[in-house]
Amino acid sequence: MECQLTIALTEQKKEKPASDKLGFGVHFTDHMFVMDYTEGKGWHDPQIVPYSPLTIDPAAMVFHYGQAVFEGLKAYRNKAGEVRLFRPDQNFKRLNRSLARLDMPAVDEAFMIEALKKLVSVEKEWIPTEEGTSLYIRPFVIATEPCFGVRASHTYKLLILLSPVGAYYAAGMKPVKIYVENSYVRAVRGGTGNAKVAGNYAGSLKAQTEAHEKGYEQVLWLDAIETKYIEEVGSMNVFFKVNGEVWTPVLNGSILEGITRDSTIQLLKSWGIPVVEKRIAMEDLFQAYNDGVLEEAFGTGTAAVISPVGEMSWNGHKMVINQSQTGEMTQKLYDTMTGIQYGVLEDKLGWSVKVTE
Amino acid sequence: MECQLTIALTEQKKEKPASDKLGFGVHFTDHMFVMDYTEGKGWHDPQIVPYSPLTIDPAAMVFHYGQAVFEGLKAYRNKAGEVRLFRPDQNFKRLNRSLARLDMPAVDEAFMIEALKKLVSVEKEWIPTEEGTSLYIRPFVIATEPCFGVRASHTYKLLILLSPVGAYYAAGMKPVKIYVENSYVRAVRGGTGNAKVAGNYAGSLKAQTEAHEKGYEQVLWLDAIETKYIEEVGSMNVFFKVNGEVWTPVLNGSILEGITRDSTIQLLKSWGIPVVEKRIAMEDLFQAYNDGVLEEAFGTGTAAVISPVGEMSWNGHKMVINQSQTGEMTQKLYDTMTGIQYGVLEDKLGWSVKVTE
Repeated sequence: MECQLTIALTEQKKEKPASDKLGFGVHFTDHMFVMDYTEGKGWHDPQIVPYSPLTIDPAAMVFHYGQAVFEGLKAYRNKAGEVRLFRPDQNFKRLNRSLARLDMPAVDEAFMIEALKKLVSVEKEWIPTEEGTSLYIRPFVIATEPCFGVRASHTYKLLILLSPVGAYYAAGMKPVKIYVENSYVRAVRGGTGNAKVAGNYAGSLKAQTEAHEKGYEQVLWLDAIETKYIEEVGSMNVFFKVNGEVWTPVLNGSILEGITRDSTIQLLKSWGIPVVEKRIAMEDLFQAYNDGVLEEAFGTGTAAVISPVGEMSWNGHKMVINQSQTGEMTQKLYDTMTGIQYGVLEDKLGWSVKVTE
Repeated sequence: MECQLTIALTEQKKEKPASDKLGFGVHFTDHMFVMDYTEGKGWHDPQIVPYSPLTIDPAAMVFHYGQAVFEGLKAYRNKAGEVRLFRPDQNFKRLNRSLARLDMPAVDEAFMIEALKKLVSVEKEWIPTEEGTSLYIRPFVIATEPCFGVRASHTYKLLILLSPVGAYYAAGMKPVKIYVENSYVRAVRGGTGNAKVAGNYAGSLKAQTEAHEKGYEQVLWLDAIETKYIEEVGSMNVFFKVNGEVWTPVLNGSILEGITRDSTIQLLKSWGIPVVEKRIAMEDLFQAYNDGVLEEAFGTGTAAVISPVGEMSWNGHKMVINQSQTGEMTQKLYDTMTGIQYGVLEDKLGWSVKVTE
């Protein structure tokens, strides 16, 4: 089991970037959390230390066999100065599922949440307060044993990095254009698609780049088996409002179990909007579009929270959704979710966790 | 383009391990090759430097999104002191295919072969000479930009590490027991299975561990779409001798294009043995087994060269192949391939590349 968390504070604090120059994931705070794992000894030596480069053997297994999993969540700070996390228990639960999939050792979820709260409170001044800004939190675990044998590593390192991030929609929400990908696939049942595994993302970059070249911002992934059913959008889950009800792909073993996805489903249901989790054939979505009942479309994920989809391209068919405007329900979801995250709306579902000191 | 290779030799040489204590991929030589890539500048500063830890930002993209590809080949040193590589051109061709799949920048193949030859000649004394031993060579490329955006990195590092390795079959060739995996899959068409990508290996570890727990040494992977057709064995390609002809799974986009696989096919054909590259249903292989015409089975890969399969378990059926003995053709392939690799047999196909200096 983890022992006592030790804290070593830096003597050289960095200058904080201006809140309109934050971007996403390019600035990092003064400290980070580090914890080591050694087979036989378990996780040990949890520490908050100054942010610094890793010194790591070039033969470390993470570089060769990709044993690396991660999580993403945010800390929000409101005008009153209160700092909140959003459902962090879900992130550490999923981290353990991802770790298990890559044959890596589980962490103590309760301890991790406490360690994270401590780290966030140490870095409290780094959390921007302007509308839409937040502190992105990146827990990750990498295999560190220097060895070329193809087997699970015997040593690991868990880190948490913090990065102040700008408003995803600095100029208001802007619907994105999506390219439905028919050649590359993201994941398949029996693979690692439902875990938050580094390799899933590496495999997606080429399709993303090709979509950009065609003038689209994101890729919509179809299933690997029949290239027929909708799976995800970019690195987000995806929802469609069709004739008053909301469809989202059912979790099938290759789709990531998004926490914003789950929160979206719960919110919609609490509003009395029917949500159907099912296999969605691209053909059926196109039919709904042609019938004039595809009313709204959006992605869900930690970075954007809710990302409206304004246009889709599928096999040469161009589908313009809600005149490329953010739909009413999409906007309400965004406003409600972020309202709860910042602690300015009532948190009926008990999702928001205050970082106390 | 790469500039001149610079060489900085160490002043503190390590002690070399005894040749019967080498193992696989746990000892590393005194030097390594390093080269950097920066967008706009290309690959630059190729260097041979003392083997040392990397100093790398914890936000480097390789840790988060798995942009990492590698190669594996060996240098062989015979009793006469001659040092040889085996088809290194094929490794750097494949490295470029892997890099392209992960949206990473290509390298100059001819330059890389020259740099590798230089590195191997610097480390010549590290190449063991006992039968079956060799110097394992691991070129790899990792994304180094510190950024959480899900996109291709703008900076990379290419390294080549060298590791003296023991005889794979220290006590003579020993056929392995294989578990045919029905739940986990390795790769799917449209994914990254035909590239030598770190994430492919991470995803395979859990199945491997579960197979070990059941008493099997390797997993046989079936296709992801129908869970019916044979793809690979562990991290090797696979061959079956059936009624005098040799079957191997046809390259289908999810199978790694093994260099030892290609060499095996060429050798067998040069011997007048028919080789059929086709989709092989596990059911048909089982039928051949029941008909008494499954004569030999083996995997091919750089580490083991040729690895005989003595037993397979499929859906509760136990298949014992050639009485769990190494088949005659399997042995001849191993002897011929290693004979060419060490430069003790005539190299009719022009595969062996002498490291001069």
